[in-house]
Amino acid sequence: MKICRFGQNQLGVVEDDQVKDVSAALDVLSPSSYPYPENDQLIANLPQVIARIKSLLPGASALPLASVSFLTPVANPGKIVAAPVNYQKHLKEVLGDPNLHHNNQIGEIHRVGLFLKATSSLVGASEGVALRKLDRRNDHEVELAVIIGHECNNVKREDALKYVAGYSIGLDITIRGPEERSMRKSPDSYTVLGPWIVTSDELNDPSALDISIAVDGELRQKSNTSDLILGVAELIEFASAFYTLHPGDILITGTPEGVGPIEPGQTMIATIEKIGTLAVVIRAA
Amino acid sequence: MKICRFGQNQLGVVEDDQVKDVSAALDVLSPSSYPYPENDQLIANLPQVIARIKSLLPGASALPLASVSFLTPVANPGKIVAAPVNYQKHLKEVLGDPNLHHNNQIGEIHRVGLFLKATSSLVGASEGVALRKLDRRNDHEVELAVIIGHECNNVKREDALKYVAGYSIGLDITIRGPEERSMRKSPDSYTVLGPWIVTSDELNDPSALDISIAVDGELRQKSNTSDLILGVAELIEFASAFYTLHPGDILITGTPEGVGPIEPGQTMIATIEKIGTLAVVIRAA
Repeated sequence: MKICRFGQNQLGVVEDDQVKDVSAALDVLSPSSYPYPENDQLIANLPQVIARIKSLLPGASALPLASVSFLTPVANPGKIVAAPVNYQKHLKEVLGDPNLHHNNQIGEIHRVGLFLKATSSLVGASEGVALRKLDRRNDHEVELAVIIGHECNNVKREDALKYVAGYSIGLDITIRGPEERSMRKSPDSYTVLGPWIVTSDELNDPSALDISIAVDGELRQKSNTSDLILGVAELIEFASAFYTLHPGDILITGTPEGVGPIEPGQTMIATIEKIGTLAVVIRAA
Repeated sequence: MKICRFGQNQLGVVEDDQVKDVSAALDVLSPSSYPYPENDQLIANLPQVIARIKSLLPGASALPLASVSFLTPVANPGKIVAAPVNYQKHLKEVLGDPNLHHNNQIGEIHRVGLFLKATSSLVGASEGVALRKLDRRNDHEVELAVIIGHECNNVKREDALKYVAGYSIGLDITIRGPEERSMRKSPDSYTVLGPWIVTSDELNDPSALDISIAVDGELRQKSNTSDLILGVAELIEFASAFYTLHPGDILITGTPEGVGPIEPGQTMIATIEKIGTLAVVIRAA
């Protein structure tokens, strides 16, 4: 199932070129008083939400896909975990270009570790990307995004995919420069997720998906998740050896070769096989 | 005012050696349905909460301070921003010890930037610290913690303190090793905040506070916030030039010289002038 959030916090299911409005399924989620849940309750209760969605679908109103403003499919992620240089050819590209590495340590991912992006950086496709620090280079990075479905800790790779709720397309927008990744990649709108989540019963093998991004029609990055140095299962093993992963946590898996500059006024079109296409407009902040 | 959270999500005010239970003031905060607020609503509505607290205090029941189990005073922070090597003597200490720098770039803070800690790493004093990766060195780091009170973006240093709700004591527990700080410092329980927030009307100048930590009675770190390379106002300016800060965001300002290893079974006692004392027990995860 392809599940999206759109418009005014509405819930939808994408079928062909239509979005079915199943917002009534959100009634499954209880209101909360302070303190609010620390993790995304749509994802934490996804089986119950999907059961309710199935009962609503036959009578749901349908909207044309092109008319829908997509929000991030995860509204309340606890954390956004991201993989640096996790495609072999991108590692080579970064090592060869001082505009990319800024004399910072660029190394093998097991040594460099994973990094965090601020949850305040997260937007959906319709919100667009607002670039800061226009005196520096800002880059597109397209990545397979993994949505954690169940709490997990010290997971072994062979069990890891059981904890995945689904997959989406992630953009890891990046200001180049010397600062730590967790700062340069965390401005507001620098993490785009969407346009929807494909649940892991429909997409159960993330290990060989074509992935690409074009900017104003020019193809910039084109690869396949089979070229990942650490695959989805290995990344979950690695991350969960340091901290507990919770429902709604987002793991973006690293970007392939071909990163390049973006400018206000441009449009990015990212595609991942079996997920779909994400269109995002760029402006100045 | 010294505001704490304790026990079963209760709200308290600390006066001398007592905690007054003012939990009824939480009624000011509305219940929410999904999606829940992205930022801490206690802090976002602090003026209204404090007005209600004042009306409750005369009739509030009092508990002995020593009997209270302190929770993190910020339950739902959007992000935890942290400063690396921000005391001059600590920078010197790190550069001189390969066990600390692991051949990673250690530089001047404006070049290295700020980093993020996972909000899932946050605990209150009573929850203790559970150490992972016991084959590596785990260190204590005591830091002045700043709680952002109002949304702010691109703030100038001369205006920055207006956006502060209050101050607290932060522990930035750290696994030594080569990975990015945002990973090594984000295991569950590796950020301790508390025992309470001192509101900025009571503590309006954070620039000259004695700060120290002892482990099992041995003094390890002792400094004064006047030795910070970037002070609180400069850190808010620096952070908010990259991303919006929101109510409840936590900024920990860096640790002074004297970092050192901790082990399960030990107790840390951290003290900051005009705030108080934070006692935290260490165990194995």
